[in-house]
Amino acid sequence: MEKQALLYEGKAKRVYQTNDDQLVWLEYKDSATAFNGEKKEQITGKGRLNNEITSLIFSKLKEAGMASHFVEKLSETEQLVKKVQIIPLETVVRNFAAGSFSKRLGIEEGRPLSKPIVEFYYKDDELGDPLLTEDHIEELKLATKEEVAILKEKALEVDALLTKLFQDIDIRLIDFKLEFGKDAEGQIVLADEISPDTCRLWDQQTNEKLDKDVFRRDLGNLTDAYETILTRLGGTTACSK
Amino acid sequence: MEKQALLYEGKAKRVYQTNDDQLVWLEYKDSATAFNGEKKEQITGKGRLNNEITSLIFSKLKEAGMASHFVEKLSETEQLVKKVQIIPLETVVRNFAAGSFSKRLGIEEGRPLSKPIVEFYYKDDELGDPLLTEDHIEELKLATKEEVAILKEKALEVDALLTKLFQDIDIRLIDFKLEFGKDAEGQIVLADEISPDTCRLWDQQTNEKLDKDVFRRDLGNLTDAYETILTRLGGTTACSK
Ligand SMILES: Nc1ncnc2c1ncn2[C@@H]1O[C@H](COP(=O)(O)OP(=O)(O)O)[C@@H](O)[C@H]1O
Ligand SMILES: Nc1ncnc2c1ncn2[C@@H]1O[C@H](COP(=O)(O)OP(=O)(O)O)[C@@H](O)[C@H]1O
Ligand SMILES: [Mg+2]
Ligand SMILES: [Mg+2]
Repeated sequence: MEKQALLYEGKAKRVYQTNDDQLVWLEYKDSATAFNGEKKEQITGKGRLNNEITSLIFSKLKEAGMASHFVEKLSETEQLVKKVQIIPLETVVRNFAAGSFSKRLGIEEGRPLSKPIVEFYYKDDELGDPLLTEDHIEELKLATKEEVAILKEKALEVDALLTKLFQDIDIRLIDFKLEFGKDAEGQIVLADEISPDTCRLWDQQTNEKLDKDVFRRDLGNLTDAYETILTRLGGTTACSK
Repeated sequence: MEKQALLYEGKAKRVYQTNDDQLVWLEYKDSATAFNGEKKEQITGKGRLNNEITSLIFSKLKEAGMASHFVEKLSETEQLVKKVQIIPLETVVRNFAAGSFSKRLGIEEGRPLSKPIVEFYYKDDELGDPLLTEDHIEELKLATKEEVAILKEKALEVDALLTKLFQDIDIRLIDFKLEFGKDAEGQIVLADEISPDTCRLWDQQTNEKLDKDVFRRDLGNLTDAYETILTRLGGTTACSK
Protein backbone atom coordinates (compact mmCIF):
# COMPACT_ATOMS: atom_id res chain seq x y z
CA MET A 1 0.00 0.00 0.00
CA GLU A 2 1.31 3.41 -1.00
CA LYS A 3 0.78 6.67 0.89
CA GLN A 4 -0.03 9.28 -1.76
CA ALA A 5 -1.33 12.87 -1.82
CA LEU A 6 -2.71 14.55 1.30
CA LEU A 7 -6.48 14.79 0.81
CA TYR A 8 -7.43 16.61 4.01
CA GLU A 9 -5.81 17.79 7.19
CA GLY A 10 -8.13 18.00 10.18
CA LYS A 11 -7.60 19.00 13.80
CA ALA A 12 -6.43 15.53 14.88
CA LYS A 13 -5.60 13.55 11.75
CA ARG A 14 -4.31 13.76 8.20
CA VAL A 15 -6.05 11.81 5.45
CA TYR A 16 -3.93 10.57 2.52
CA GLN A 17 -4.91 9.01 -0.76
CA THR A 18 -3.51 5.52 -1.50
CA ASN A 19 -2.98 3.51 -4.69
CA ASP A 20 -6.36 1.86 -3.95
CA ASP A 21 -9.10 4.44 -4.51
CA GLN A 22 -11.36 2.70 -2.00
CA LEU A 23 -8.85 3.10 0.84
CA VAL A 24 -7.35 6.08 2.65
CA TRP A 25 -4.35 6.35 4.97
CA LEU A 26 -5.03 8.08 8.30
CA GLU A 27 -2.20 9.66 10.26
CA TYR A 28 -2.88 10.64 13.87
CA LYS A 29 -1.30 13.95 14.85
CA ASP A 30 0.24 15.07 18.15
CA SER A 31 -2.07 18.05 18.46
CA ALA A 32 -4.82 18.57 21.01
CA THR A 33 -7.62 21.06 20.36
CA ALA A 34 -10.76 21.99 22.28
CA PHE A 35 -13.59 24.53 22.22
CA ASN A 36 -13.79 24.41 18.43
CA GLY A 37 -10.05 24.96 18.03
CA GLU A 38 -9.76 27.90 20.43
CA LYS A 39 -7.53 25.95 22.82
CA LYS A 40 -4.63 24.24 21.08
CA GLU A 41 -1.43 22.40 22.08
CA GLN A 42 1.17 20.00 20.71
CA ILE A 43 1.35 16.90 22.90
CA THR A 44 4.08 14.41 22.03
CA GLY A 45 2.76 10.85 22.01
CA LYS A 46 -0.92 11.74 21.68
CA GLY A 47 -1.11 10.67 18.03
CA ARG A 48 0.33 7.27 18.84
CA LEU A 49 -1.95 6.75 21.82
CA ASN A 50 -5.12 7.62 19.91
CA ASN A 51 -4.10 5.50 16.95
CA GLU A 52 -3.35 2.51 19.19
CA ILE A 53 -6.55 2.92 21.20
CA THR A 54 -8.79 3.48 18.17
CA SER A 55 -7.25 0.47 16.40
CA LEU A 56 -7.83 -1.73 19.44
CA ILE A 57 -11.42 -0.54 19.85
CA PHE A 58 -12.37 -0.89 16.19
CA SER A 59 -10.85 -4.40 16.20
CA LYS A 60 -12.95 -5.37 19.21
CA LEU A 61 -16.07 -3.85 17.63
CA LYS A 62 -15.37 -5.88 14.48
CA GLU A 63 -15.10 -9.09 16.54
CA ALA A 64 -18.52 -8.20 17.98
CA GLY A 65 -19.96 -7.80 14.49
CA MET A 66 -19.95 -4.00 14.14
CA ALA A 67 -18.85 -3.04 10.62
CA SER A 68 -16.56 -0.03 10.31
CA HIS A 69 -14.07 1.67 8.04
CA PHE A 70 -11.13 0.09 9.90
CA VAL A 71 -8.84 -2.14 7.84
CA GLU A 72 -5.55 -2.30 9.75
CA LYS A 73 -3.03 -0.46 11.86
CA LEU A 74 -0.02 0.43 9.69
CA SER A 75 2.33 1.96 12.25
CA GLU A 76 2.30 3.53 15.69
CA THR A 77 0.49 6.58 14.31
CA GLU A 78 -1.05 5.33 11.07
CA GLN A 79 -4.07 3.33 9.98
CA LEU A 80 -5.50 2.04 6.74
CA VAL A 81 -9.25 2.57 6.48
CA LYS A 82 -11.99 2.31 3.87
CA LYS A 83 -12.62 5.64 2.22
CA VAL A 84 -16.11 6.84 3.02
CA GLN A 85 -18.12 9.93 2.42
CA ILE A 86 -18.49 11.30 5.93
CA ILE A 87 -22.06 12.25 6.89
CA PRO A 88 -21.57 15.72 8.44
CA LEU A 89 -23.16 14.76 11.75
CA GLU A 90 -21.53 14.15 15.08
CA THR A 91 -23.57 11.37 16.63
CA VAL A 92 -23.27 11.63 20.40
CA VAL A 93 -24.40 8.95 22.86
CA ARG A 94 -24.75 9.84 26.53
CA ASN A 95 -25.11 7.43 29.44
CA PHE A 96 -24.41 9.99 32.16
CA ALA A 97 -24.84 13.76 32.14
CA ALA A 98 -21.61 15.67 31.53
CA GLY A 99 -20.07 18.60 29.69
CA SER A 100 -22.28 20.75 27.47
CA PHE A 101 -25.29 18.51 28.17
CA SER A 102 -25.04 19.22 31.91
CA LYS A 103 -24.61 22.94 31.34
CA ARG A 104 -27.39 23.28 28.76
CA LEU A 105 -29.97 21.35 30.73
CA GLY A 106 -28.93 22.10 34.28
CA ILE A 107 -28.21 18.46 35.18
CA GLU A 108 -25.21 17.84 37.44
CA GLU A 109 -22.23 16.03 35.93
CA GLY A 110 -22.18 12.29 36.55
CA ARG A 111 -25.92 11.85 36.99
CA PRO A 112 -26.99 8.62 35.24
CA LEU A 113 -29.60 9.09 32.51
CA SER A 114 -32.75 6.97 32.62
CA LYS A 115 -31.65 5.54 29.27
CA PRO A 116 -28.90 6.27 26.76
CA ILE A 117 -29.62 9.45 24.79
CA VAL A 118 -28.52 9.88 21.18
CA GLU A 119 -27.96 13.44 19.94
CA PHE A 120 -26.89 14.79 16.57
CA TYR A 121 -24.68 17.82 16.07
CA TYR A 122 -24.01 19.50 12.74
CA LYS A 123 -20.31 18.86 11.97
CA ASP A 124 -19.61 22.44 10.92
CA ASP A 125 -16.78 24.31 12.65
CA GLU A 126 -17.98 27.70 11.37
CA LEU A 127 -21.38 27.23 13.00
CA GLY A 128 -19.79 25.76 16.14
CA ASP A 129 -21.32 22.27 15.73
CA PRO A 130 -24.91 23.15 16.76
CA LEU A 131 -27.30 20.57 18.20
CA LEU A 132 -29.84 19.42 15.61
CA THR A 133 -33.28 17.92 15.82
CA GLU A 134 -34.29 15.25 13.31
CA ASP A 135 -36.35 17.85 11.43
CA HIS A 136 -33.28 20.07 11.11
CA ILE A 137 -31.30 17.13 9.69
CA GLU A 138 -34.04 16.53 7.12
CA GLU A 139 -34.35 20.25 6.25
CA LEU A 140 -30.58 20.56 5.79
CA LYS A 141 -30.64 17.33 3.73
CA LEU A 142 -27.80 15.90 5.83
CA ALA A 143 -29.52 12.52 6.06
CA THR A 144 -32.96 11.05 5.44
CA LYS A 145 -35.30 9.96 8.28
CA GLU A 146 -34.41 6.34 7.44
CA GLU A 147 -30.70 7.08 7.64
CA VAL A 148 -31.15 8.87 10.97
CA ALA A 149 -32.90 5.76 12.29
CA ILE A 150 -29.93 3.64 11.16
CA LEU A 151 -27.45 6.03 12.81
CA LYS A 152 -29.39 5.88 16.07
CA GLU A 153 -29.59 2.10 16.02
CA LYS A 154 -25.89 1.68 15.26
CA ALA A 155 -24.93 4.30 17.85
CA LEU A 156 -26.86 2.44 20.55
CA GLU A 157 -25.28 -0.86 19.49
CA VAL A 158 -21.82 0.70 19.77
CA ASP A 159 -22.82 2.10 23.17
CA ALA A 160 -23.80 -1.34 24.46
CA LEU A 161 -20.54 -2.88 23.21
CA LEU A 162 -18.30 -0.09 24.49
CA THR A 163 -20.03 0.16 27.86
CA LYS A 164 -19.26 -3.53 28.41
CA LEU A 165 -15.71 -3.23 27.04
CA PHE A 166 -14.88 -0.37 29.39
CA GLN A 167 -16.73 -1.85 32.35
CA ASP A 168 -14.42 -4.85 32.12
CA ILE A 169 -11.42 -2.57 32.61
CA ASP A 170 -13.03 -0.66 35.45
CA ILE A 171 -13.96 2.40 33.43
CA ARG A 172 -17.32 4.15 33.19
CA LEU A 173 -18.30 5.23 29.67
CA ILE A 174 -19.97 8.62 30.29
CA ASP A 175 -20.54 9.70 26.68
CA PHE A 176 -18.90 9.59 23.26
CA LYS A 177 -19.03 10.97 19.72
CA LEU A 178 -19.19 8.89 16.55
CA GLU A 179 -18.94 9.73 12.87
CA PHE A 180 -20.47 7.63 10.15
CA GLY A 181 -19.89 7.62 6.43
CA LYS A 182 -21.14 5.98 3.26
CA ASP A 183 -18.86 3.46 1.58
CA ALA A 184 -18.54 2.82 -2.16
CA GLU A 185 -21.72 0.70 -2.08
CA GLY A 186 -23.67 3.44 -0.29
CA GLN A 187 -23.73 1.46 2.97
CA ILE A 188 -23.55 3.42 6.23
CA VAL A 189 -20.47 2.39 8.22
CA LEU A 190 -18.85 3.59 11.42
CA ALA A 191 -15.80 5.76 10.64
CA ASP A 192 -13.38 8.29 12.16
CA GLU A 193 -11.99 7.45 15.61
CA ILE A 194 -13.02 6.21 19.04
CA SER A 195 -10.45 7.37 21.58
CA PRO A 196 -10.13 9.39 24.79
CA ASP A 197 -10.42 12.42 22.47
CA THR A 198 -13.96 11.39 21.54
CA CYS A 199 -15.19 9.63 24.72
CA ARG A 200 -15.61 10.66 28.34
CA LEU A 201 -14.02 7.90 30.39
CA TRP A 202 -14.05 7.95 34.20
CA ASP A 203 -12.30 5.52 36.48
CA GLN A 204 -15.06 3.45 38.06
CA GLN A 205 -13.55 3.64 41.56
CA THR A 206 -12.13 7.14 41.79
CA ASN A 207 -14.11 9.01 39.07
CA GLU A 208 -10.75 10.22 37.77
CA LYS A 209 -11.16 11.62 34.26
CA LEU A 210 -9.12 9.67 31.72
CA ASP A 211 -10.08 11.58 28.58
CA LYS A 212 -9.79 14.91 26.76
CA ASP A 213 -11.37 16.76 29.70
CA VAL A 214 -7.88 16.47 31.27
CA PHE A 215 -6.78 18.85 28.48
CA ARG A 216 -9.99 20.94 28.25
CA ARG A 217 -10.01 21.61 31.99
CA ASP A 218 -6.26 21.47 32.72
CA LEU A 219 -6.61 18.54 35.11
CA GLY A 220 -3.11 17.10 34.70
CA ASN A 221 -1.07 15.07 32.26
CA LEU A 222 -3.00 14.01 29.18
CA THR A 223 -0.64 11.30 27.96
CA ASP A 224 -0.63 9.66 31.41
CA ALA A 225 -4.42 9.43 31.26
CA TYR A 226 -4.44 8.07 27.71
CA GLU A 227 -1.67 5.57 28.58
CA THR A 228 -3.85 4.29 31.41
CA ILE A 229 -6.67 3.64 28.94
CA LEU A 230 -4.34 1.92 26.45
CA THR A 231 -2.73 -0.23 29.11
CA ARG A 232 -6.04 -1.31 30.62
CA LEU A 233 -7.32 -2.18 27.14
CA GLY A 234 -4.34 -4.55 26.88
CA GLY A 235 -2.34 -2.42 24.47
CA THR A 236 1.42 -2.08 24.55
CA THR A 237 2.84 1.18 25.85
CA ALA A 238 5.72 2.89 24.06
CA CYS A 239 8.29 2.83 26.83
CA SER A 240 8.59 0.64 29.92
CA LYS A 241 6.82 2.87 32.42
CA MET B 1 -65.62 38.21 38.29
CA GLU B 2 -63.22 39.53 40.93
CA LYS B 3 -59.54 40.31 40.42
CA GLN B 4 -57.77 38.95 43.50
CA ALA B 5 -54.15 38.32 44.57
CA LEU B 6 -51.25 38.56 42.11
CA LEU B 7 -50.09 35.00 41.46
CA TYR B 8 -47.17 35.66 39.15
CA GLU B 9 -45.57 38.56 37.35
CA GLY B 10 -43.77 37.68 34.13
CA LYS B 11 -41.90 39.76 31.59
CA ALA B 12 -45.05 40.70 29.63
CA LYS B 13 -48.06 39.90 31.81
CA ARG B 14 -49.35 39.70 35.35
CA VAL B 15 -51.45 36.72 36.43
CA TYR B 16 -54.12 37.29 39.13
CA GLN B 17 -56.26 34.88 41.04
CA THR B 18 -60.05 35.30 40.73
CA ASN B 19 -63.01 34.20 42.86
CA ASP B 20 -63.28 31.18 40.51
CA ASP B 21 -60.32 28.87 41.19
CA GLN B 22 -60.45 27.53 37.62
CA LEU B 23 -59.96 30.99 36.12
CA VAL B 24 -57.14 33.54 36.18
CA TRP B 25 -57.05 37.20 35.20
CA LEU B 26 -54.26 38.19 32.79
CA GLU B 27 -53.03 41.76 32.59
CA TYR B 28 -50.84 42.73 29.66
CA LYS B 29 -48.00 45.08 30.60
CA ASP B 30 -46.42 47.93 28.66
CA SER B 31 -42.93 46.42 28.87
CA ALA B 32 -40.87 45.03 26.03
CA THR B 33 -37.99 42.65 26.70
CA ALA B 34 -35.65 40.70 24.45
CA PHE B 35 -32.54 38.52 24.64
CA ASN B 36 -33.74 36.82 27.80
CA GLY B 37 -34.48 40.13 29.52
CA GLU B 38 -31.15 41.81 28.67
CA LYS B 39 -32.84 44.48 26.54
CA LYS B 40 -35.79 46.14 28.27
CA GLU B 41 -38.08 49.12 27.66
CA GLN B 42 -41.43 50.56 28.69
CA ILE B 43 -43.62 51.09 25.62
CA THR B 44 -46.94 52.82 26.23
CA GLY B 45 -49.76 51.06 24.44
CA LYS B 46 -47.99 47.73 23.93
CA GLY B 47 -50.04 45.96 26.62
CA ARG B 48 -53.30 47.06 25.01
CA LEU B 49 -52.15 46.07 21.52
CA ASN B 50 -51.04 42.59 22.56
CA ASN B 51 -54.17 42.02 24.59
CA GLU B 52 -56.41 43.10 21.68
CA ILE B 53 -54.46 41.06 19.12
CA THR B 54 -54.24 37.94 21.29
CA SER B 55 -57.96 38.15 22.10
CA LEU B 56 -58.85 38.45 18.40
CA ILE B 57 -56.59 35.57 17.43
CA PHE B 58 -57.78 33.22 20.17
CA SER B 59 -61.39 34.06 19.23
CA LYS B 60 -60.71 33.17 15.60
CA LEU B 61 -58.92 29.98 16.61
CA LYS B 62 -61.93 29.05 18.75
CA GLU B 63 -64.28 29.58 15.78
CA ALA B 64 -62.04 27.21 13.82
CA GLY B 65 -62.33 24.59 16.57
CA MET B 66 -59.00 25.05 18.37
CA ALA B 67 -59.54 24.84 22.13
CA SER B 68 -57.58 27.26 24.30
CA HIS B 69 -57.46 28.87 27.72
CA PHE B 70 -59.20 32.00 26.36
CA VAL B 71 -62.51 32.92 27.96
CA GLU B 72 -63.05 36.63 27.28
CA LYS B 73 -61.47 40.03 26.95
CA LEU B 74 -62.20 42.05 30.11
CA SER B 75 -60.72 45.43 29.24
CA GLU B 76 -58.21 46.99 26.86
CA THR B 77 -55.36 45.30 28.71
CA GLU B 78 -57.06 42.43 30.53
CA GLN B 79 -58.30 38.96 29.78
CA LEU B 80 -60.05 36.19 31.61
CA VAL B 81 -58.55 32.77 30.90
CA LYS B 82 -58.81 29.22 32.19
CA LYS B 83 -56.12 28.53 34.76
CA VAL B 84 -53.77 25.86 33.47
CA GLN B 85 -50.55 24.28 34.58
CA ILE B 86 -48.12 25.56 31.98
CA ILE B 87 -45.91 22.86 30.43
CA PRO B 88 -42.43 24.46 30.63
CA LEU B 89 -41.81 24.17 26.89
CA GLU B 90 -41.81 26.88 24.27
CA THR B 91 -43.25 25.20 21.20
CA VAL B 92 -41.94 27.00 18.13
CA VAL B 93 -43.27 26.52 14.60
CA ARG B 94 -41.23 27.79 11.67
CA ASN B 95 -42.41 28.24 8.08
CA PHE B 96 -39.45 30.35 6.94
CA ALA B 97 -35.91 30.55 8.31
CA ALA B 98 -35.33 33.55 10.60
CA GLY B 99 -33.70 34.67 13.83
CA SER B 100 -31.79 32.13 15.90
CA PHE B 101 -32.72 29.33 13.49
CA SER B 102 -30.99 31.14 10.62
CA LYS B 103 -27.93 31.90 12.72
CA ARG B 104 -27.61 28.42 14.23
CA LEU B 105 -27.98 26.54 10.97
CA GLY B 106 -26.52 29.03 8.51
CA ILE B 107 -29.75 29.43 6.51
CA GLU B 108 -30.49 32.97 5.23
CA GLU B 109 -33.48 34.77 6.75
CA GLY B 110 -36.66 34.47 4.76
CA ARG B 111 -35.84 31.18 3.05
CA PRO B 112 -38.99 29.03 2.97
CA LEU B 113 -38.64 25.66 4.70
CA SER B 114 -39.61 22.51 2.79
CA LYS B 115 -42.25 21.97 5.46
CA PRO B 116 -43.17 23.58 8.78
CA ILE B 117 -40.70 22.63 11.52
CA VAL B 118 -41.75 22.27 15.15
CA GLU B 119 -39.08 22.86 17.80
CA PHE B 120 -39.20 22.70 21.57
CA TYR B 121 -37.26 24.98 23.90
CA TYR B 122 -36.96 24.54 27.64
CA LYS B 123 -38.88 27.49 29.21
CA ASP B 124 -36.15 28.27 31.75
CA ASP B 125 -34.75 31.81 31.84
CA GLU B 126 -31.74 30.75 33.91
CA LEU B 127 -30.66 28.24 31.28
CA GLY B 128 -31.49 30.69 28.48
CA ASP B 129 -34.33 28.60 26.99
CA PRO B 130 -32.17 25.89 25.36
CA LEU B 131 -33.35 23.90 22.33
CA LEU B 132 -34.44 20.39 23.34
CA THR B 133 -34.73 17.11 21.49
CA GLU B 134 -37.62 14.79 22.31
CA ASP B 135 -35.26 12.60 24.31
CA HIS B 136 -34.25 15.61 26.42
CA ILE B 137 -37.92 16.36 27.10
CA GLU B 138 -38.45 12.79 28.24
CA GLU B 139 -35.27 12.73 30.37
CA LEU B 140 -36.23 16.02 32.05
CA LYS B 141 -39.76 14.64 32.55
CA LEU B 142 -41.26 17.82 31.04
CA ALA B 143 -43.73 15.81 28.96
CA THR B 144 -44.24 12.22 27.84
CA LYS B 145 -43.67 11.07 24.25
CA GLU B 146 -47.46 10.97 23.80
CA GLU B 147 -47.82 14.53 25.08
CA VAL B 148 -45.05 15.72 22.78
CA ALA B 149 -46.94 14.16 19.85
CA ILE B 150 -50.08 16.07 20.90
CA LEU B 151 -48.13 19.34 21.21
CA LYS B 152 -46.69 18.85 17.73
CA GLU B 153 -50.06 18.05 16.21
CA LYS B 154 -51.76 21.03 17.85
CA ALA B 155 -48.89 23.34 16.92
CA LEU B 156 -49.15 22.36 13.26
CA GLU B 157 -52.92 22.85 13.36
CA VAL B 158 -52.46 26.33 14.80
CA ASP B 159 -49.84 26.99 12.12
CA ALA B 160 -52.26 26.08 9.32
CA LEU B 161 -54.99 28.29 10.80
CA LEU B 162 -52.73 31.26 11.49
CA THR B 163 -50.97 31.07 8.14
CA LYS B 164 -54.36 31.38 6.43
CA LEU B 165 -55.55 34.10 8.82
CA PHE B 166 -52.47 36.25 8.19
CA GLN B 167 -52.35 35.51 4.45
CA ASP B 168 -55.83 37.02 4.19
CA ILE B 169 -54.49 40.30 5.58
CA ASP B 170 -51.40 40.24 3.39
CA ILE B 171 -48.98 39.11 6.08
CA ARG B 172 -46.50 36.26 5.95
CA LEU B 173 -46.30 34.15 9.10
CA ILE B 174 -42.58 33.42 9.40
CA ASP B 175 -42.54 31.65 12.77
CA PHE B 176 -44.18 31.77 16.20
CA LYS B 177 -43.98 30.47 19.76
CA LEU B 178 -46.80 28.73 21.64
CA GLU B 179 -47.26 27.65 25.22
CA PHE B 180 -49.55 24.85 26.28
CA GLY B 181 -50.90 23.91 29.67
CA LYS B 182 -52.98 21.27 31.37
CA ASP B 183 -56.44 22.27 32.52
CA ALA B 184 -58.28 20.99 35.61
CA GLU B 185 -59.26 17.80 33.72
CA GLY B 186 -55.65 17.16 32.65
CA GLN B 187 -56.41 18.10 29.03
CA ILE B 188 -53.67 19.85 27.05
CA VAL B 189 -54.90 23.26 25.87
CA LEU B 190 -53.30 26.17 24.09
CA ALA B 191 -52.47 28.99 26.55
CA ASP B 192 -50.41 32.16 26.98
CA GLU B 193 -50.50 34.66 24.09
CA ILE B 194 -50.26 34.88 20.31
CA SER B 195 -49.18 38.38 19.38
CA PRO B 196 -46.46 40.26 17.49
CA ASP B 197 -44.35 39.56 20.60
CA THR B 198 -44.52 35.83 19.92
CA CYS B 199 -44.78 35.71 16.10
CA ARG B 200 -42.60 36.91 13.25
CA LEU B 201 -44.94 38.71 10.84
CA TRP B 202 -43.70 40.19 7.57
CA ASP B 203 -45.72 42.31 5.17
CA GLN B 204 -46.26 40.09 2.14
CA GLN B 205 -45.46 42.86 -0.36
CA THR B 206 -42.64 44.80 1.27
CA ASN B 207 -41.22 42.23 3.74
CA GLU B 208 -41.51 44.95 6.40
CA LYS B 209 -41.20 43.43 9.85
CA LEU B 210 -44.35 43.95 11.91
CA ASP B 211 -43.31 42.16 15.09
CA LYS B 212 -40.96 42.23 18.07
CA ASP B 213 -37.91 42.25 15.77
CA VAL B 214 -38.71 45.98 15.38
CA PHE B 215 -37.74 46.24 19.06
CA ARG B 216 -34.99 43.59 19.09
CA ARG B 217 -33.21 45.15 16.12
CA ASP B 218 -34.19 48.82 16.58
CA LEU B 219 -36.02 48.98 13.26
CA GLY B 220 -38.47 51.76 14.10
CA ASN B 221 -41.66 52.32 16.05
CA LEU B 222 -43.01 49.18 17.70
CA THR B 223 -46.54 50.41 18.42
CA ASP B 224 -46.95 51.51 14.78
CA ALA B 225 -46.08 48.00 13.64
CA TYR B 226 -48.40 46.35 16.18
CA GLU B 227 -51.23 48.82 15.29
CA THR B 228 -50.86 47.74 11.65
CA ILE B 229 -51.39 44.12 12.67
CA LEU B 230 -54.39 44.98 14.87
CA THR B 231 -56.01 47.16 12.20
CA ARG B 232 -55.55 44.58 9.45
CA LEU B 233 -57.03 41.91 11.73
CA GLY B 234 -60.12 44.14 11.93
CA GLY B 235 -59.53 45.33 15.47
CA THR B 236 -60.30 48.82 16.69
CA THR B 237 -57.37 51.13 17.31
CA ALA B 238 -57.24 53.30 20.44
CA CYS B 239 -57.14 56.73 18.88
CA SER B 240 -58.22 57.94 15.44
CA LYS B 241 -54.91 57.72 13.60
N1 LIG C 1 -12.90 6.49 6.54
C1 LIG C 1 -12.83 7.80 6.27
N2 LIG C 1 -12.88 8.27 4.99
C2 LIG C 1 -12.79 9.60 4.73
N3 LIG C 1 -12.69 10.54 5.69
C3 LIG C 1 -12.64 10.13 6.97
C4 LIG C 1 -12.73 8.76 7.34
N4 LIG C 1 -12.68 8.67 8.69
C5 LIG C 1 -12.61 9.93 9.17
N5 LIG C 1 -12.58 10.82 8.15
C6 LIG C 1 -12.47 12.29 8.23
O1 LIG C 1 -11.12 12.63 8.37
C7 LIG C 1 -11.03 13.98 8.75
C8 LIG C 1 -9.83 14.19 9.63
O2 LIG C 1 -10.10 13.90 10.96
P1 LIG C 1 -9.96 15.00 12.10
O3 LIG C 1 -8.55 15.47 12.19
O4 LIG C 1 -10.60 14.45 13.33
O5 LIG C 1 -10.82 16.19 11.43
P2 LIG C 1 -11.78 17.32 12.04
O6 LIG C 1 -10.89 18.36 12.59
O7 LIG C 1 -12.57 17.77 10.84
O8 LIG C 1 -12.64 16.64 13.08
C9 LIG C 1 -12.39 14.31 9.36
O9 LIG C 1 -13.09 15.17 8.45
C10 LIG C 1 -13.09 12.97 9.41
O10 LIG C 1 -14.50 13.12 9.29
N1 LIG D 1 -53.91 30.11 31.29
C1 LIG D 1 -52.85 30.28 32.04
N2 LIG D 1 -52.81 29.82 33.32
C2 LIG D 1 -51.71 30.00 34.08
N3 LIG D 1 -50.59 30.61 33.68
C3 LIG D 1 -50.56 31.07 32.41
C4 LIG D 1 -51.68 30.94 31.54
N4 LIG D 1 -51.35 31.49 30.34
C5 LIG D 1 -50.08 31.95 30.47
N5 LIG D 1 -49.60 31.71 31.69
C6 LIG D 1 -48.28 32.06 32.24
O1 LIG D 1 -48.32 33.39 32.67
C7 LIG D 1 -47.00 33.83 32.91
C8 LIG D 1 -46.88 35.30 32.60
O2 LIG D 1 -46.68 35.56 31.25
P1 LIG D 1 -45.36 36.29 30.76
O3 LIG D 1 -45.33 37.68 31.29
O4 LIG D 1 -45.30 36.11 29.28
O5 LIG D 1 -44.24 35.45 31.52
P2 LIG D 1 -42.76 35.00 31.17
O6 LIG D 1 -41.89 36.19 31.37
O7 LIG D 1 -42.48 33.88 32.13
O8 LIG D 1 -42.79 34.50 29.72
C9 LIG D 1 -46.11 32.89 32.09
O9 LIG D 1 -45.39 32.05 32.98
C10 LIG D 1 -47.10 32.07 31.29
O10 LIG D 1 -46.60 30.79 31.01
MG1 LIG E 1 -12.34 15.01 14.31
MG1 LIG F 1 -43.98 35.03 28.10
